[in-house]
Amino acid sequence: MILYDDPRSGNGYKARLLLSHLSLPYRYVPLDIMRGETRTAQFLKKNPNGRIPLLELDEGYFLAESNAILYYLSQGTDYWPAERYARAQVMQWLFFEQYSHEPNVATPRFWLTIKGMNDTSFDRELLAQKQRAGNDALAVMDGHLARRTFFVVDRYTIADIALYAYTHIADEGGFDLSRYPAVVSWLQRVREQPGHVTIDAWEGA
Amino acid sequence: MILYDDPRSGNGYKARLLLSHLSLPYRYVPLDIMRGETRTAQFLKKNPNGRIPLLELDEGYFLAESNAILYYLSQGTDYWPAERYARAQVMQWLFFEQYSHEPNVATPRFWLTIKGMNDTSFDRELLAQKQRAGNDALAVMDGHLARRTFFVVDRYTIADIALYAYTHIADEGGFDLSRYPAVVSWLQRVREQPGHVTIDAWEGA
Repeated sequence: MILYDDPRSGNGYKARLLLSHLSLPYRYVPLDIMRGETRTAQFLKKNPNGRIPLLELDEGYFLAESNAILYYLSQGTDYWPAERYARAQVMQWLFFEQYSHEPNVATPRFWLTIKGMNDTSFDRELLAQKQRAGNDALAVMDGHLARRTFFVVDRYTIADIALYAYTHIADEGGFDLSRYPAVVSWLQRVREQPGHVTIDAWEGA
Repeated sequence: MILYDDPRSGNGYKARLLLSHLSLPYRYVPLDIMRGETRTAQFLKKNPNGRIPLLELDEGYFLAESNAILYYLSQGTDYWPAERYARAQVMQWLFFEQYSHEPNVATPRFWLTIKGMNDTSFDRELLAQKQRAGNDALAVMDGHLARRTFFVVDRYTIADIALYAYTHIADEGGFDLSRYPAVVSWLQRVREQPGHVTIDAWEGA
């Protein structure tokens, strides 16, 4: 398998983390989104939506969207539950992550640490708005985790992997995680999983 | 089953459409998001993220996120493919829909037809930005459908249901669908599926 990714991406990190848990070998192709390397004609042939991460399963068989990659890789493993309602709950949290969490928790980090605050498109009001919505998402997580060890069936699944990716670096987007003690405890439990790797560990780093 | 929904919601319509295809009986509870009916203490107990649609499968067993609901209901039916890569591709399009499509195609419609352009929070620059991103998403769909009848394995699946919901009313958000002929043909094929219902058809309407 080949993983096309920007090493700074939390979405790409989801795939790297699960691949590490599963000890699956893969070739890593780092791309720089800020230099437009995911918008070249060559890359758009692989993913017409021009985004990373992108997993090439076999020559010409591509899979885009970080959480679809998690879904695919987790099939038949302990990171995907066996029961129908539990599976649907994992899905619920994966969609929560992409709709309510990532656009509000990851985007401020992207603006503040990757794109840079001096960019002319930087909008302080929009940043504050996203931080409010991001705190709402973190509060939902904190409430859910107050009585649970992991998001679904009290076991570490791809729901935890997806939500860990940008939550554990939320401080880089101006979030104060100490406001969410159940989230902080859960982050530690995720870090203790066998095969855990950090976001800056990738093949070639 | 009980579906909590705002009748104007395209996300809720996804669930209504699949429930109709499957001829599954359900109780419909219409809520008005503009009156804060999804933010009451009572509703937040059901879905702490305060959003519709929400499916109550059995007393106290809730499932949020429209595409997780589609996933759950489609298990074991013709609307969910049998093969692992095809399933992952369905997931890819479901996440594309929630990340690249819905926030950019549905939000302009929400602002222009439900919230109202005179709202003080209305931001003309942000609208234009979302319309550009929405057109990018529609162009990706058009390119994909140019050589296919449906999104995955040339068969109608929940990927088509999810993407149909807000695409077929994109004109209400200021989009010109005639620019996307493959999308227009696909919309017609979706409408021809047995058990199709329109977005304004719901129990009690």
